[in-house]
Amino acid sequence: MKGISRRNFVKNTALATGAASIIGTAEAKPAKELFVHHVYFYLKNPSSEADKAKLLEGLEKLSKVPTIRMVHIGVPAPTTRSVIVRDYSISWLCFFDNLEEEEIYQKHPIHLKFVEDYSHLWEKVNVYDSVGPKR
Amino acid sequence: MKGISRRNFVKNTALATGAASIIGTAEAKPAKELFVHHVYFYLKNPSSEADKAKLLEGLEKLSKVPTIRMVHIGVPAPTTRSVIVRDYSISWLCFFDNLEEEEIYQKHPIHLKFVEDYSHLWEKVNVYDSVGPKR
Repeated sequence: MKGISRRNFVKNTALATGAASIIGTAEAKPAKELFVHHVYFYLKNPSSEADKAKLLEGLEKLSKVPTIRMVHIGVPAPTTRSVIVRDYSISWLCFFDNLEEEEIYQKHPIHLKFVEDYSHLWEKVNVYDSVGPKR
Repeated sequence: MKGISRRNFVKNTALATGAASIIGTAEAKPAKELFVHHVYFYLKNPSSEADKAKLLEGLEKLSKVPTIRMVHIGVPAPTTRSVIVRDYSISWLCFFDNLEEEEIYQKHPIHLKFVEDYSHLWEKVNVYDSVGPKR
């Protein structure tokens, strides 16, 4: 009897917790957030097409990290207004559902291998992480 | 004769350039492009919540420019690694189908009105425009 009661208690608690977290999600943040991670790569040899191709190859592999919701790989556009920064070589933009998912990405074996295999190509990276409502 | 030759030269060059870019579009990039426009706003009074709210109000209006495909408005995330730039106040990220659509946005009355009404709030903007395949 005690065993059954305990089992039921655990079962009911689990259900209640599940329900609470669903309600909690609905109440505390009615709009979902989106975590934007934007990296600008500055290559050691910015004029080397081979190095650029190599980094693009690496980024293609990196795009397989499962918590990435959307990814865009780009190069500076031909726009040239004075406020435009265009001294980087490659833009790497990705979206995550939240900060925790981005942290999983940072520590993911695919990401660690990417840094190990390709970081010799870049001189520096400028990273902008921003959060705001998903629209 | 010299005038005609020049005219033909200009005309042929224009055609050749046009053809090359069309062939380029068809062959080199079978996938569609995506134009990423990312603006980081540095407010004159970064500690003023009122100024931040005012700029957010302006950006909400700006988001109505019809050529914008996707928009995200954010603030610096709590991530603090050394490579992360987090001295700006507001991140404004939007996607366009191509450079031409972004140029329409730049000249759109909604955009011009936004600059007119809200540019007194910021000290500077850093803008990154990048292009790459749509995935």
